[in-house]
Amino acid sequence: MKSQQVFFFGDGKADGNREQKETLGGKGANLAEMTNLGVPVPPGFTIAAQLCLRYLENQAIPDDIREEVARNLTRLEEVSGRKLGDAAAPLLLSVRSGAAVSMPGMMETVLNLGLNDRTVLGLARKSGNARFAYDSYRRLIQMYGDVVLGVNLDDFEHLLTAKRLTTGARSDAELDEESLRNLVEEYKSLVLKTTGAPFPMDPQEQLWGAIEAIWRSWTIKKAVDYRRVNRISDQLGTAVNVVTMVFGNMGEDSGTGVAFTRNPSTGERRFYGEFLVNAQGEDVVAGTRTPLPIADMARLLPAAFEELMAIQDRLERHYRDMQDLEFTVENGRLYLLQTRTGKRTAAAAVRIAREMVAEGLIDELVALRRVRPEQLDQLLHPVLDVEAAGTPICRGLPASPGAASGQAVFDADVAESRANAGEAVVLVRAETTPEDFHGMVLARAILTARGGMTSHAAVVARGMGKCAVVGASEMEIDVQHRRFRVGDTAVSEGDWITLDGATGQVYLGNLPTHPSEVVRVVEGTLDREDAPVFRGFDDLLGWADRERRLGVRANADTPHDARIARGFGAEGIGLCRTEHMFFEGDRIHAVREMIVARDEAGRRRALARLLPMQQADFEDIFEVMDGLPVTIRLLDPPLHEFLPHGGEETKLLARTLGMQRAELNRIVEGLRETNPMLGHRGCRLGITFPEITEMQARAIFRAALAASRRGIAVHPEVMIPLIASVEEFRNQRTIVDAVAVETFGANGAVPYMVGTMIELPRAALTAGAIAAEADFFSFGTNDLTQTTLGLSRDDAGRFLPQYIDLGIFPNDPFQVLDQEGVGQLITMGTVAGRAVRSSLKVGICGEHGGEPSSITFCHRTGLDYVSCSPYRVPVARLSAAQAALDD
Amino acid sequence: MKSQQVFFFGDGKADGNREQKETLGGKGANLAEMTNLGVPVPPGFTIAAQLCLRYLENQAIPDDIREEVARNLTRLEEVSGRKLGDAAAPLLLSVRSGAAVSMPGMMETVLNLGLNDRTVLGLARKSGNARFAYDSYRRLIQMYGDVVLGVNLDDFEHLLTAKRLTTGARSDAELDEESLRNLVEEYKSLVLKTTGAPFPMDPQEQLWGAIEAIWRSWTIKKAVDYRRVNRISDQLGTAVNVVTMVFGNMGEDSGTGVAFTRNPSTGERRFYGEFLVNAQGEDVVAGTRTPLPIADMARLLPAAFEELMAIQDRLERHYRDMQDLEFTVENGRLYLLQTRTGKRTAAAAVRIAREMVAEGLIDELVALRRVRPEQLDQLLHPVLDVEAAGTPICRGLPASPGAASGQAVFDADVAESRANAGEAVVLVRAETTPEDFHGMVLARAILTARGGMTSHAAVVARGMGKCAVVGASEMEIDVQHRRFRVGDTAVSEGDWITLDGATGQVYLGNLPTHPSEVVRVVEGTLDREDAPVFRGFDDLLGWADRERRLGVRANADTPHDARIARGFGAEGIGLCRTEHMFFEGDRIHAVREMIVARDEAGRRRALARLLPMQQADFEDIFEVMDGLPVTIRLLDPPLHEFLPHGGEETKLLARTLGMQRAELNRIVEGLRETNPMLGHRGCRLGITFPEITEMQARAIFRAALAASRRGIAVHPEVMIPLIASVEEFRNQRTIVDAVAVETFGANGAVPYMVGTMIELPRAALTAGAIAAEADFFSFGTNDLTQTTLGLSRDDAGRFLPQYIDLGIFPNDPFQVLDQEGVGQLITMGTVAGRAVRSSLKVGICGEHGGEPSSITFCHRTGLDYVSCSPYRVPVARLSAAQAALDD
Repeated sequence: MKSQQVFFFGDGKADGNREQKETLGGKGANLAEMTNLGVPVPPGFTIAAQLCLRYLENQAIPDDIREEVARNLTRLEEVSGRKLGDAAAPLLLSVRSGAAVSMPGMMETVLNLGLNDRTVLGLARKSGNARFAYDSYRRLIQMYGDVVLGVNLDDFEHLLTAKRLTTGARSDAELDEESLRNLVEEYKSLVLKTTGAPFPMDPQEQLWGAIEAIWRSWTIKKAVDYRRVNRISDQLGTAVNVVTMVFGNMGEDSGTGVAFTRNPSTGERRFYGEFLVNAQGEDVVAGTRTPLPIADMARLLPAAFEELMAIQDRLERHYRDMQDLEFTVENGRLYLLQTRTGKRTAAAAVRIAREMVAEGLIDELVALRRVRPEQLDQLLHPVLDVEAAGTPICRGLPASPGAASGQAVFDADVAESRANAGEAVVLVRAETTPEDFHGMVLARAILTARGGMTSHAAVVARGMGKCAVVGASEMEIDVQHRRFRVGDTAVSEGDWITLDGATGQVYLGNLPTHPSEVVRVVEGTLDREDAPVFRGFDDLLGWADRERRLGVRANADTPHDARIARGFGAEGIGLCRTEHMFFEGDRIHAVREMIVARDEAGRRRALARLLPMQQADFEDIFEVMDGLPVTIRLLDPPLHEFLPHGGEETKLLARTLGMQRAELNRIVEGLRETNPMLGHRGCRLGITFPEITEMQARAIFRAALAASRRGIAVHPEVMIPLIASVEEFRNQRTIVDAVAVETFGANGAVPYMVGTMIELPRAALTAGAIAAEADFFSFGTNDLTQTTLGLSRDDAGRFLPQYIDLGIFPNDPFQVLDQEGVGQLITMGTVAGRAVRSSLKVGICGEHGGEPSSITFCHRTGLDYVSCSPYRVPVARLSAAQAALDD
Repeated sequence: MKSQQVFFFGDGKADGNREQKETLGGKGANLAEMTNLGVPVPPGFTIAAQLCLRYLENQAIPDDIREEVARNLTRLEEVSGRKLGDAAAPLLLSVRSGAAVSMPGMMETVLNLGLNDRTVLGLARKSGNARFAYDSYRRLIQMYGDVVLGVNLDDFEHLLTAKRLTTGARSDAELDEESLRNLVEEYKSLVLKTTGAPFPMDPQEQLWGAIEAIWRSWTIKKAVDYRRVNRISDQLGTAVNVVTMVFGNMGEDSGTGVAFTRNPSTGERRFYGEFLVNAQGEDVVAGTRTPLPIADMARLLPAAFEELMAIQDRLERHYRDMQDLEFTVENGRLYLLQTRTGKRTAAAAVRIAREMVAEGLIDELVALRRVRPEQLDQLLHPVLDVEAAGTPICRGLPASPGAASGQAVFDADVAESRANAGEAVVLVRAETTPEDFHGMVLARAILTARGGMTSHAAVVARGMGKCAVVGASEMEIDVQHRRFRVGDTAVSEGDWITLDGATGQVYLGNLPTHPSEVVRVVEGTLDREDAPVFRGFDDLLGWADRERRLGVRANADTPHDARIARGFGAEGIGLCRTEHMFFEGDRIHAVREMIVARDEAGRRRALARLLPMQQADFEDIFEVMDGLPVTIRLLDPPLHEFLPHGGEETKLLARTLGMQRAELNRIVEGLRETNPMLGHRGCRLGITFPEITEMQARAIFRAALAASRRGIAVHPEVMIPLIASVEEFRNQRTIVDAVAVETFGANGAVPYMVGTMIELPRAALTAGAIAAEADFFSFGTNDLTQTTLGLSRDDAGRFLPQYIDLGIFPNDPFQVLDQEGVGQLITMGTVAGRAVRSSLKVGICGEHGGEPSSITFCHRTGLDYVSCSPYRVPVARLSAAQAALDD
């Protein structure tokens, strides 16, 4: 038995329904659904998507399909009371593609199909409007010529423009019947000349031509590319919708419009949209006439409006989601041409989800699935007022969202002094290093010419929730003259620029932005009651917390970051990078003194000065995180990163240290590394200089003891970085445990854990041995990605974009976890670690901890928590909940 | 039932035998064996090594042992006819440690035990030599004081020296009886003052004190360190040998000596050794008297000599290996004090193995096990005449063996010009880069201040079989003034220095060396008939080839290297690094032009100039390797490595290219990478610049076609480097296959393979997918080690030595394969790859391919071949055979 391949809808009932998107495409399924609901839809039929693939394979129309289409066409003629090609009452059709997954802009459409030299007369007669009939006819030839026959669309446009010029018409609408009739002839000649064959007069031939063209459109380059980029299967195919034409341009009692059942920008529960009287859909889209607000329709087409209001309400209740509608009124009669789930801003998504729960339309679990985690991020950053923005001067990678304006400055010191003087600055650098940290903290935004999405600038900026655009490679920075140049545009120190971290665009001038409501509430500068978006956000995440199994922590290095993280719902700190503290204030002097010390005694002297500062930092963080765990990573970066590189700074340091400049230079030079990422860093520092580990452990435990005595519940977790073998871990743990005994006494006043980052393949491969000694694992997926793929995140920018374009990598592996490679190591390490120590706590603290698909992976792998930058905590909470719901 | 814990030997039979080394230690087992053979050995007993551990655990002497020792002592007294502590005929004992594994210099010894104020008189009477008796007594107090009582040895020496000075004796031998008697009293006072207790007069107390001291010595720091470094188990313990004293210093009919059954230096089958008349063993060791050649003994102690000749012959036949003997003649009577397998040079090892096979003493399989693979390496390099060498000025890592002298030069250009002028030069650099290649090729040796065993200098030098010492960090190089300084010593350009690549030592001056016989035969400058060492070497490797399953290939980049490799028995080239060809002659100009080209067209123009040069290289290599496979790796290093770094060179290049210097600088600067190891290199170059892959494939296939037409059997294997995902491989393979079709036509005139290096963890983790597309895998263990451990081989020198000292890493993982981590990936990758493609050829081509324990791993893992530098091929052949024999 053959399965059904053509699905009819009309006369109040349809063969298909909304569940059949795979077969009917999204558009066709919803046309069927609306028909079954009794919503007025022009009758028609949908050819199943599977036929598209069959056609592409055979390159011929199967006979059984010809028959099935013919039967449905006959039925359509019966329902509509018109006949295809009939000179008196011609049936006119629209033919459109429609795949299961929306592919915006990929859709092919032919309208007014069925018109020819004879039926145009019938249409003129029946509509009483010859101008309308010829205009419809010339539109058919133009669309058909373009879509089906491959005639250049511009050539049609040339003829149309020429006609306006020779007749003096100011717009197409002013072209009269005769001009249009001439134009039809000119169009037909163009088709004949270009294709060698006349425009087909046979409506059957037109119909099959259009259907075949839509099928073929599945394999045109832009469609294939779109599917590859959006990872849509090539095996879906597109359905074809053949629908009776209705015309909104039949006079003042006709019109057309698009509408949303709720406001797609704010989420407000109010019917929202726009319409035009006496117009066709494409007039709305083309923007040649300014549409009216939907409310005006109540006055202009009251009956149709009343019916539309009832239908939109019914559709929203039926679909239980905000709908995006297209409709046409033909001579006072309303037709719905499309309904689909409406796209919406983050604020609208959150508000709609929350209000639909309140209205009882959906439950909380459904609401949780309605918001894409990434959308939440939009709510946390100021947004550029796009309309005021104008043209950007260049574009980089959108490294950290939000928008910000400031005066361009070219080094961290100037950034600091100007910012301290109350000015808004944007720090512009070729690339940033930890030395720039003090300037980055105070800058409004960061712009770099080099580096990728996980360059230092990008990571630090995201960590601070600060706008950043990186790798804007067109910029030529001239630090000496304190300016940069993009093509002919030069920007000097003090010139205002505005960055859009959501798009990576860079603008001249100080452009207006809107601050984030959510952040204002979290920071305490806005009351919850005055923040409807925040309330939606907060309720949604509350529901998420009830569903998720995965814990969510934050990467936070300062009490301020910790406070923000906690405000966003972090359940602890998963990564506190102690070295970031080393750059604060004048600590860097003690750090440098420690590094260039000639011997252990000298190092110990400098470390003794750092100890109270680190201790104070930790105590403040413990206080903010009262009751929650705080994972503190011991010193990680290569020492060279802390040293000055410029001549002036070296001179100053030499003077401070009472050292010959030559000697200092030799030391600095001696610390330089060919591949610092793979160099003397992480636990390798703590092993060669055990006094550093000692000092840090002492600062942590003294702070813990002090806080604990003040009644604060402290849960320190000391994390040893860059472990490659269990022997390294054992070496460092011995030091840490000894300091704990020294600080807490034998009775262990404060419970603590010692664990490790798993960030080298060898650590994952030998995780069993390491777990025998370690209390917890935290997968450092940034470095684990670098080593597993042999890919420096600082250098990959040179070829990674091309890799993604070529489809060699599906994504930037520093943003989206490489589950096949890096993920395999995480799974191996987790399984092996837990086999040895069932209580092993396992988390991840790389950039991936805030990325939804990576979080889903962590959930499935059975990790205990993810840790991400404070501003990603909401994204992680929602992602974790969605992952749990998907189980 | 208790097992036996004390083992007697004497009177022609022994409780133990040579199989019981674990229990009796090496020394004790051989004493027992010799006793059973009827060889004259002073009687004694051995306390089992297990007792040592029992004692250390309980810190007390077990009662059952006291009893068992007492029983054996009684038996010893019966056999010897003397009694411990007997005033008339005192039994004197030597007490020595002896573990199952030789721990040279770790051995504790107490001689003359049993002497006290009473028995010394008995000894004087019985020997008729009071001076001898008191000398023996003072030696006992000195040794016992040092080993058992912890008195500072220097304090005894001070008293001895003072006695010489006050008596006018020129040597200890001139001290008369009275002086020695006084000295005994002074020694006893020293013991009393230092330890608070008198020197023990009770021989039983002396005996147990000595036994306990030996047991305790198992845990002294230097012994623990030695075992850790040499990976000897702490759970062995040491046996204690209690043996009747015999004295070689009883007069002109007494003597002592050491001898080898064959010459340990050359392997010649002739009894070899030295002896002293009227002396004790320690006199031979101390070097205070010059020993006589063993042949002289025939004249001086003819009876004893005759007996010794018969015994040595019997022992060698019994042990079937060259023996190292210690003997003493006491009043004309010969005693063997020790026999053990003799240490020997590489030349001797090879010759002895070969000749023992010829003599029917051993078979070929035993011969194969008798030579350590590493020893073969010694045979390939010139050897420094150590006696002429004097004191080194500094020391670095022994990166590439051999010895060489030359005038110090400080850059590659000077090296080239001076070498071309016929001078011998040693290239001295802080570290080398590929740019130095032309100088390295022509230098006699290479010396660097930085870098480890796998730094560029080390790898390239080993590849060329050239002597290199790297990481001599005491050197301060002043390139500007063309000199280096070590402490107060300055070496300027043109000064002669000599490097010993076997020890890492650097000497001033032009020191004499001996050339390698084996290399001279391989290079054709010496006839096989005149080369006994070569013949042994060649026979041995012939036997190895019959036993091994693993193939052995060589890493060779030039026809010259390929010829050497084939001469050493390589069965193909496993790694031909095309980039090394880029530095030859003026090719570097075309390479640089290619790199800085503004567009693809410019790159293609430069590549077109390189094509014929590469093609010619490949054709020459194919010719040399006629009939054998040649694996050619496509361009691998980051492009930056090819660019000039100095101002002058940049200026020159800019002029050559007709480019603004500023523009060139921008390009060079833009190519600089933070972590070049993880940067834009390997297949990433071929993917972003497909024209490079095209050119190289074209050069390979055109060369193959041309050679093939000349009747040469060509087996090219194209290897894609640095694959992280199968998509990269597919991309590059597509290009290579297309060029093959273009070159060979559709009928495929020359069969070829396309495979990949597995040198990133991700490649090993996704090996199944890659094997679906690749014909072969070659594990690039250098880079795989770098990425798996997150360890830059260029930078690890700063902490790796400390890591090995601390026992964190058992070895330098760049020399000895990390089987647990990197090896796990190799196993996973091999298994997964073969599961998908059973015919997959799998090899390794990192430095580890020439290291014995790594080769054993490759054999066990089922790899098809190892590839190593040409000079390591013999090592690999023998290692592979030994691994097969161990199966």
